[in-house]
This record gives sequence, C-alpha cells and structure tokens, in this order.
Amino acid sequence: MQSEIDHKSGWLSAEGILDARAQLPILYIEALPVRTDSHGRVLQIGLLLRAMPDGSISRSLVSGRVLHGELVRDALLRHLEKDLGAMALPVLPSSTVPIAVSEYFPDESISGLHDPRQHAVALSYLVSVKGDCAPSQASLDLAWLTPSEAISGQTASEMTGGQHKVLITLLAHVGAI
Amino acid sequence: MQSEIDHKSGWLSAEGILDARAQLPILYIEALPVRTDSHGRVLQIGLLLRAMPDGSISRSLVSGRVLHGELVRDALLRHLEKDLGAMALPVLPSSTVPIAVSEYFPDESISGLHDPRQHAVALSYLVSVKGDCAPSQASLDLAWLTPSEAISGQTASEMTGGQHKVLITLLAHVGAI
Amino acid sequence: MQSEIDHKSGWLSAEGILDARAQLPILYIEALPVRTDSHGRVLQIGLLLRAMPDGSISRSLVSGRVLHGELVRDALLRHLEKDLGAMALPVLPSSTVPIAVSEYFPDESISGLHDPRQHAVALSYLVSVKGDCAPSQASLDLAWLTPSEAISGQTASEMTGGQHKVLITLLAHVGAI
Amino acid sequence: MQSEIDHKSGWLSAEGILDARAQLPILYIEALPVRTDSHGRVLQIGLLLRAMPDGSISRSLVSGRVLHGELVRDALLRHLEKDLGAMALPVLPSSTVPIAVSEYFPDESISGLHDPRQHAVALSYLVSVKGDCAPSQASLDLAWLTPSEAISGQTASEMTGGQHKVLITLLAHVGAI
Repeated sequence: MQSEIDHKSGWLSAEGILDARAQLPILYIEALPVRTDSHGRVLQIGLLLRAMPDGSISRSLVSGRVLHGELVRDALLRHLEKDLGAMALPVLPSSTVPIAVSEYFPDESISGLHDPRQHAVALSYLVSVKGDCAPSQASLDLAWLTPSEAISGQTASEMTGGQHKVLITLLAHVGAI
Repeated sequence: MQSEIDHKSGWLSAEGILDARAQLPILYIEALPVRTDSHGRVLQIGLLLRAMPDGSISRSLVSGRVLHGELVRDALLRHLEKDLGAMALPVLPSSTVPIAVSEYFPDESISGLHDPRQHAVALSYLVSVKGDCAPSQASLDLAWLTPSEAISGQTASEMTGGQHKVLITLLAHVGAI
Repeated sequence: MQSEIDHKSGWLSAEGILDARAQLPILYIEALPVRTDSHGRVLQIGLLLRAMPDGSISRSLVSGRVLHGELVRDALLRHLEKDLGAMALPVLPSSTVPIAVSEYFPDESISGLHDPRQHAVALSYLVSVKGDCAPSQASLDLAWLTPSEAISGQTASEMTGGQHKVLITLLAHVGAI
Repeated sequence: MQSEIDHKSGWLSAEGILDARAQLPILYIEALPVRTDSHGRVLQIGLLLRAMPDGSISRSLVSGRVLHGELVRDALLRHLEKDLGAMALPVLPSSTVPIAVSEYFPDESISGLHDPRQHAVALSYLVSVKGDCAPSQASLDLAWLTPSEAISGQTASEMTGGQHKVLITLLAHVGAI
C-alpha cells in the first residue's frame, strides 16, 4: 500500500493532498517579484503566465504550499527559486509579517478570492529580485510590467481567481498605485 | 465506516486531526486580549491559565485552529468568544494582517516556538475587549496584568512553548514595552 | 512684539505657520472613519466635504497637524473629535504604526500627492467609529459610502490632491477593494 | 541679515533649527542596519557609537531629519550613506510604512523616549546592508552584534533616550528576540 506522505520531506501523495484539501485550510505563500531602484521604489513587477487550477491561462503571482516542517521564509525562497530560476537572487524580507492574508475558497462569494480546488490561506509578500529571472517549465512566460500597466484593466482581465485584488493591495502598500 | 470529517462543519474527528497533523502545517489564530483607554493605549493584557499540550499549567494567549471553509476573522471571533465568554465584546481589527506570524514546531530548535503535537502556523493579533470576560471551562483562570508585569521574568517563567516571545512582540508593536 | 507661538499649547500664530511651512516637512495625521460589523469588516466609510487648500470643494479624510508636545495618538483623537463631533466614539488603534505614510508636496510630480501650501507628511490610519458622527462647522457635509462606492471613479473625481490613492491604500489594507 | 534657510536645499541655519524645534514636532527617520542571510534572517545588527544630544557616549541607531522637499525614502538613503559610508549598499524597503513610530520628547515621562533638544517623531526602519560599512566622522565606532547580544542588558545600558526599546521593537518584528 502506498504511503500518503513521505514524512521526511513533508510531501503528500496526490491522494493525500485531495484528502487534506477537503479537511483543512491549506497554508500558502504568495509573492509578487519586483525590480526596484536604489531607493526601494518599485520600477517593474513580474507576473507569470500559467495554466491555472480553473483551466484558464492566466497571469499570476509566484505561489505554493508551505510544507510540513518548513519555515515560511524557507517556503518563500523555495517557491521563488522554483518559479523564477536559481539566478533570480530574491532579497527576502526580514520579517515574515505579510502585506496581506489572502483567503481563497472554492465558493468565490465568501471572500472574492477563488480557488476551485481548495480553501487556501496565502501569506502575500512583495519580493525584490536582483538577478536574472527565467520562468520555470511550469510557467509559459514571465512578463515585466510597470506598476501602471499592472493596475490597468487589461492586466485585471488577464488574472483569475480575484488575484488582481491581491496585486493592487501589494502595490498600494508600496505606494505604487 | 466512520467519516473523518463532517464536511459541513469543517470539524475533524480525533483520528482525522492526528493524520492531518503529520502531513501539513495547521493554521491557527492567536490573540492577546487587551483593555485600552480612549486613546488606544494598552492598560492591561489578559492571559489564560490552562493545561498545555506539553502537560504543564501555563499562562497563554487565546488560540485555536482555523476551520475548513472559515474566514480568519470568523475564527478569531469564535475563539475569543469561546475562551473569554459571550460578553467579552471584542473589537476585531479591520485588517487581518497579523502583528506576527508565529511558527510552532515539535522540534523547538527550529524557531524557538514549540508545540509537541504539531507544526502550527499562527496569525497573531492583539484584540481590544470592551465587555466582561469570563474564562471558559477549558481554562482555569483569566488574569489581567499591566504591560510591565506581562514583560517581566515572572510572567515569562509561567508561559511555555516560547509564547512569551510572541507576547513581547505584540506588546512592542503597540509601544507597550 | 507678538510671540509666534504659545509655547504651552503648541499652537503657532498664522505667521509662524507660514514660516515653518517653508522650512520643514509638517507632520500630519490622516484618518478614514469607518463603520464595521462585529467581525471587523468595513461596511461603510465616511468622507468629509470641505473647502480644500487648493480652493476646490472636495471629499476628504479627517486630517490635521500634530502639535509640538503632542502624542500622535492624542492628535488622532483630537482631529477625529474636531471633525466628527464629540459623540463619534472612535475606537483608536492600539498601535500608532500607520497603514500608509502619505507625503504631500507643493509640486505634485514628486509623489502624486499634492498640497499647495506645504510639504506635509501624514501618518494615515483607518479608525472605526461606534457613535453618532456630525460634521463640524469646518465641513459642509459627511457622507457614508460603501467600499465599492468609495473606490469608484465617481468618488475619485470628487477628491483632490491625490487623496483618492490614500483611500484605496487604506481600503486595500483591510481587504475592502 | 542672514537668511534662516537655504530654500533650495531645505537646510536650516542653526538659529532656524532652534526656532523650529520650539514650535513643531520634527520629522526624523531612524534605521537599524542589519546583515541577513539569503533567507532574510537577521544575523547581525549594527550600532553606532556616538556623542548623543544629552552629552553621553552611546550606542545608537542611524538617524536624522527629513528635509523640506525630501521624500522619506530619500532621507533614509541619505542618512544611511552618511552614517555608514558610500559602500554600505543598503537595500531599502519597498514600503515606507515604518516598523515603529518613535516619539521623542524633552520630557521623558511622556513616551519613555527622550530627546533633550526637541520633540522628534521618527519613522523607524530596519534596513539590510550588503556592502562594507564604515562609520562616518560623526561616529566613533560601528559595532556588529548578534540579536541576542543586542537585546541584552549590557547593550541596554549602553543606549540612552529609551532607544533600546526601539531596538527591541525592530528585532521583535523580524522574529529575532
């Protein structure tokens, strides 16, 4: 019989994930990669283009689960490197206090944020990257936009699950709206 | 066969909880109830006295799990009412951005915060209460301390799992250390 | 010779204010009054209608200077009571860490926030009010809007000095956009 | 007659400063320089050794005034470079929302923070530095301490004006107490 989890790594089997998703909110991290000038001002933001859980092709933030036994800051670094490549050189925030707590539900009327697979609670950050970013094989593209392009209706129409609201919240926090 | 979960309520059976705890970080909320003056200054903080997972009798924050399908702010209100009674009249913060993200591990060397049962990630808040608080049956007592009593070594020695560090962080955020 | 300042009260004479405004950034507090439900969710926001420094009639936040010798939280309460009346019963935040630092310049190209009189740096808060609000004589009206009305283009067109951006930032922080 | 201010630069003459200090709260920025690992964890913090306004030789944060016409983030960078040298390579936070608002008064009973010269309101930040730091001529030394050394009673005794409380608040925010 197949074990549901490799307890060392904290990875769940596909079956174990399905089970947990029906029982508990799943903890995620979410990050908006940004390029900043020497004064900390956001010049550009990076959005992945990827196949989403709802079947659409959408612009999205870097995101992923926090594993059992894993620190939030380690999960943040792991997902940034997974989605942006090993040369992205993200400068992680010293504090793990997020800019937003983003609550995704299968029923989109609850919070306005929607994930058809699960109830996920994401800690949402903005992370400056200093190196070269390359979208991973899981992503189709990585686009760099100015803040004003990012808050436009055009970008809103290319994001699903309510994630454009998270984007606005992150940009508002850094004075970039 | 007994179902592990009542999907409507989001409650897990005892067995289901054990299973999930070995697989995923469990999302908690934690709250420090405080009494404030009309200027928002913290005058007193409330600590529960309760039997802890490690078997000790300790002073502790209000805390508890976020259920499947439950909003963080609903979990916060539910646990405040459960631990402080229906007449506590907590004034919930408008934002769910926590003051701290507190990561508890079975191995206390990882973060300095320790929970022998599980990897729990708590969103930590400070909540003003305006009414009459009565400790629930799950608690032995509710004590009101001044901020300077709360940060003392005496109080530190009465708290376990590293939770006194969370207390200091919450009080520092409101300028009460 | 008339003294420029009553040192006891921290009030400047009109001439003293003019002088200081040419020399130093002036510290302000700004507050968005809100009505919340028992879970802390923002249901309505209050906007004053007043004559602005640029001569327009505009919707605006509660705002005002921090006086010499005055604590930020005391200035916050003073201006809320001045602009909303003595029965507004504001619930001040326990922390004085603002949601935004809003920098207004005579030259609007610097930050997008504009004050023709001075360089003002405002600590911007959102404050729940529990009582009855009445606009002071300095205001023409106090309007209560839903968050979606508040973020609309209509409201944006009724605010000047870039203050609608501050409004969006405050609402985004509480998940109300 | 000597002008009190060079309006272009925003610098006040010595006399102008004295005057303003009696009339208005003066806006400061304060920064704790830190060295972090690739996960954003604080490994070391830097404290200047300098002659303080109260005549003592004390450990202190980087700090200084925000000038008329100057953005907060520009003031932050300017003072970091002035106190740590041009090769410090500070990584400024993307947001200007401070970790603490630190209110210093000539009367130390008001807030616990004390500045004998003036009422100063400081926006307090923690800033990661990536390069080589050299104390400026205004400082006698720059010492790098571990977080546990920094929160010790020994360090507390070497800081004046209540600034050790600000240090604890900054370190608590990043989980380093």
